[in-house]
Amino acid sequence: MTHLTLALDAMGGDVGPCVTVPAALQALASNPGLHLLLVGDPAALHPLLAKVDSALLSRLEIVPAESVIASDARPSQAIRASRGTSMRIALELIKTGRAQACVSAGNTGALIGLAKLLLKPLEGIDRPALVTVLPHQQQGKTVVLDLGANVECDSAQLVQFAVMGSVMAEEVLSLRNPRVALLNIGEEETKGLAAIRDAAAQLKNTPSINYIGYLEGNELLTGKTDVMVCDGFVGNVTLKTMEGVVRMFLSLLKSSSTDVGRKAKQAWWLTLIGRFIQRRLAKRFGHLNPDQYNGACLLGLRGTVIKSHGAANQRAFAVAIEQAMQAVQRQLPDRIAARLKTVLPKSD
Amino acid sequence: MTHLTLALDAMGGDVGPCVTVPAALQALASNPGLHLLLVGDPAALHPLLAKVDSALLSRLEIVPAESVIASDARPSQAIRASRGTSMRIALELIKTGRAQACVSAGNTGALIGLAKLLLKPLEGIDRPALVTVLPHQQQGKTVVLDLGANVECDSAQLVQFAVMGSVMAEEVLSLRNPRVALLNIGEEETKGLAAIRDAAAQLKNTPSINYIGYLEGNELLTGKTDVMVCDGFVGNVTLKTMEGVVRMFLSLLKSSSTDVGRKAKQAWWLTLIGRFIQRRLAKRFGHLNPDQYNGACLLGLRGTVIKSHGAANQRAFAVAIEQAMQAVQRQLPDRIAARLKTVLPKSD
Repeated sequence: MTHLTLALDAMGGDVGPCVTVPAALQALASNPGLHLLLVGDPAALHPLLAKVDSALLSRLEIVPAESVIASDARPSQAIRASRGTSMRIALELIKTGRAQACVSAGNTGALIGLAKLLLKPLEGIDRPALVTVLPHQQQGKTVVLDLGANVECDSAQLVQFAVMGSVMAEEVLSLRNPRVALLNIGEEETKGLAAIRDAAAQLKNTPSINYIGYLEGNELLTGKTDVMVCDGFVGNVTLKTMEGVVRMFLSLLKSSSTDVGRKAKQAWWLTLIGRFIQRRLAKRFGHLNPDQYNGACLLGLRGTVIKSHGAANQRAFAVAIEQAMQAVQRQLPDRIAARLKTVLPKSD
Repeated sequence: MTHLTLALDAMGGDVGPCVTVPAALQALASNPGLHLLLVGDPAALHPLLAKVDSALLSRLEIVPAESVIASDARPSQAIRASRGTSMRIALELIKTGRAQACVSAGNTGALIGLAKLLLKPLEGIDRPALVTVLPHQQQGKTVVLDLGANVECDSAQLVQFAVMGSVMAEEVLSLRNPRVALLNIGEEETKGLAAIRDAAAQLKNTPSINYIGYLEGNELLTGKTDVMVCDGFVGNVTLKTMEGVVRMFLSLLKSSSTDVGRKAKQAWWLTLIGRFIQRRLAKRFGHLNPDQYNGACLLGLRGTVIKSHGAANQRAFAVAIEQAMQAVQRQLPDRIAARLKTVLPKSD
């Protein structure tokens, strides 16, 4: 791996340094070319680094930040009062070229607003979109956007999302000519909201996008499309619904498998078989666990920003760091900018 | 059970009479007080009734309809050309008082439009909403609306949905003072679309509604609320996403449990245990199978209309018939009308 430097908002998220610092150390241990800038309160960070191997520490630097944006702060107010916060300093490290990307588990609205303010959208993009890559039933993956950066979208934005998603599917999933669908409430042309129907008409006339039509919510995980496009309100609710159902199943599954041994009069061999089956099932469904794909990429800016789930645990935050590394290595912003020039009308 | 007559659109749905007729016979066999009016093409229906017991047939009547509305027809056109179709005749049987409710698996848009045209909304309701009752993690159920009758909703409509959902939770789920939440992309007051924030402000000032605030998509199945309110676009995508994930899990689970026996060198006792576990898991998760709660109720009209899933199988269509019976027995339209008078401003 070539040399790569990321800035981490070490104070963001529901837990803060107790999750971000161990995840940072985990990422450093797995990636010898990685350097990390931990942005936050030195007094909170130093104790967590006390017993760390000096070889790891040599690739870690603390960048002091005096305050933190609260998770429940109103984004507009948080942005106005953002000077000196860990989130803003982490983003500024990209702007000044010291970091190639940044990861934060902090306030989503503030992160999107600040990132847009500091890093600026690419030419042809009105507003950035939050994107994630979901595992599907056919062993492949689907790029889904927008996940909440834009609660209301016009057709031009949906088309921009389609372009960005398409480039992401090519670069990150290594797909040629990825299929792009619009999420809608029916597959017939007349269905849904006006913005979606207008976007469909534009996408049909965009030869560089492999537009395949509308798909419904139940097709999200079936692998029928490589890119699923929707507005941020619908995308956010859909993703969270999916995560809720998956988490419920995984927890029911765990208790069910444990039951098998317990109910059968405690026979030791049934208990063993119960555990064996539980491990098999956990393996089978493990790739669907939301922790495995934590980290939404904020696409459409002149820089790479990864939003981690606020409630991410160490493993999940480490996955978000990996996502940032991948986005930098695949040069996503540059490739999206290049594709936009061939597809979209000039913005001015 | 007291005497009860339902009209079935026997021709609607992806399969038509081959699903609706066996489901009708199943419902008649289970409910001695039930009478059914099968609306459709007699030439298609008679052969399916040839070997049926005469006691059942005495509670079944064929009402001829010369045509059927195609599932993929444009609703506005289908409604204009609806005279003589099985769907329209089934609805007219409610209007003329021959049936107390109707069930159709046909074109959703046409059914909603025709039902509104023929049965008229209750005073205080702008447009009817599609409602379903979903099983949740705490062994209870949640009323969810709107599921697609209204792709765009203003705050007044969301408040009307909250009232209707609240009455449904009281009458169908027998809950006192049911909790009502608005589906949103965050729990903070500032989140989401303007219509949702306005509806929240109105619901806070409506003492007869137990409004508990915003909930996110991952709370849909956790049992935190008894009624979840959203616009029809979001509700439709959310429900279908949930169904897609549940179906995927159930199918993976089935193949996983079968694997257990097969992989372990075909030992007969492991195969038996594999089957035992599969049955246990199927039972554990069975209540989440979308077939078990098929049938969305079209609320807000002066009559009861149940929309079955177009792809419903016999069991699922029979569940939709049961839903219609329940809605009639609980006198949902009357009770909603009564509640509306106490809550909403007069419409004129």
